[in-house]
Amino acid sequence: MSGTNSTNPAVQGGGPAIVLVQPQLGENIGFAARAMLNCGLTELRLVRPRDGWPNPKAVAAAAGADAVIENARLFDSLAEAVAGLRHVYATTARPRHMIKPVVTPRRAAAELREFTGRGEACGVLFGPERWGLTNDDLVLADTVLSVPLNPAFASLNLGQAVLLVGYEWFQAGEATAPRVLAGAEAEPADKAALMRFFEHLEAELDAAGFLRVPEKRPSMVRNIRNIFQRAALTEQEVATLHGIVTALSGRRYGGKPRERE
Amino acid sequence: MSGTNSTNPAVQGGGPAIVLVQPQLGENIGFAARAMLNCGLTELRLVRPRDGWPNPKAVAAAAGADAVIENARLFDSLAEAVAGLRHVYATTARPRHMIKPVVTPRRAAAELREFTGRGEACGVLFGPERWGLTNDDLVLADTVLSVPLNPAFASLNLGQAVLLVGYEWFQAGEATAPRVLAGAEAEPADKAALMRFFEHLEAELDAAGFLRVPEKRPSMVRNIRNIFQRAALTEQEVATLHGIVTALSGRRYGGKPRERE
Repeated sequence: MSGTNSTNPAVQGGGPAIVLVQPQLGENIGFAARAMLNCGLTELRLVRPRDGWPNPKAVAAAAGADAVIENARLFDSLAEAVAGLRHVYATTARPRHMIKPVVTPRRAAAELREFTGRGEACGVLFGPERWGLTNDDLVLADTVLSVPLNPAFASLNLGQAVLLVGYEWFQAGEATAPRVLAGAEAEPADKAALMRFFEHLEAELDAAGFLRVPEKRPSMVRNIRNIFQRAALTEQEVATLHGIVTALSGRRYGGKPRERE
Repeated sequence: MSGTNSTNPAVQGGGPAIVLVQPQLGENIGFAARAMLNCGLTELRLVRPRDGWPNPKAVAAAAGADAVIENARLFDSLAEAVAGLRHVYATTARPRHMIKPVVTPRRAAAELREFTGRGEACGVLFGPERWGLTNDDLVLADTVLSVPLNPAFASLNLGQAVLLVGYEWFQAGEATAPRVLAGAEAEPADKAALMRFFEHLEAELDAAGFLRVPEKRPSMVRNIRNIFQRAALTEQEVATLHGIVTALSGRRYGGKPRERE
């Protein structure tokens, strides 16, 4: 699926670094890179990837996010990877025996936008696939980022976790209208055109005897008009409906347009 | 990574059906099922999956979301798959030559919560991996759901698209506080305990000559107190800091706690 157009500045970089701590599978590094670029994030840092670096499986799984993979930086320790950062978030479940602020991805995104907007470098840490970040890793982070999910089935793979954090980052800088009517730029019909159609339709319905009970006619007409009113028709669609009414009423009279009575 | 606890009713079902139209790879059906259960969605409908059904690759990729896979319903056409639904969303890019409301995933989630809260069955359509939903598919939907992403790299795989829609569905029913201090339930120190620590520290700093310039002393004391004030210490941590000050000042005098002067 494809996204809508955007002039989001995140696409030009400047977002938080994504720091993968001891990632195990090259594929997952690739999925993470793809998810990052989907969300306009480009700075990938790797701490001791298990299968070494570079890793061809990461390139294949990145599915075109080559620039992220090629520019990834390698570190021997998490301390070195975060050394240049001013605000560090660690993705994990809520810590049990450690006092630490815990934020949702949405709140983290708002905070990251604020920090990076002031030019303060930020990073988000993701632990190894199997066991996640250790308590020693967490101590290097300011804040825990925990994703609210079905508590009975909350485990995400690495690429999905990166996607959700990146998605919130992107949305926090987005101005896409929550609901629009696409395609409606093309000539919405004016109300006079709509009235002409109503009159055409009702004349044919009168002729066909559909509106023959006088006391019911006003409410039937209102209901029918309301159906077409609600459809927010274009001029082209109104023309199509005129044609439909003409064709249907013609067919009743043997395939030829009927004479007006 | 794991999520936080939740009493989200979505986990008990009642969310929108996820309708995969002609999915190609069994793995992707499995990834979609896993993402669904992560987000408390359980109703999967499949329209003509390319490699038949059931598909062992889907089970493997579902990584434990077996119930979603086992309860998936199979349909010969999209029209049959959506027949029982009252509100249908189609995930795709904005349509070019079709007038259709277009919503963000967040807006869709709010609408879906409202509809399902009234007991009105809803569904979200996802097209085949390679080419997405066709215009004929779109006509069966009320609304287009389009994910704002990096326009230069917007393509998501099927499981990721399902995850983002499900994630927004789950968050729309969530009451997780955006920012909390985890672990802070355990005895925050009272201000008297904090004052006793300040006095202990400052007495030792006076003795060590660190605060020896009288005109600077007040501001130095304020700055030092502020550091510890900001750390929001527990009683246990205050006790640890007393120990640190005692140990450090003892070491200056040859490893034994120093006599008060």
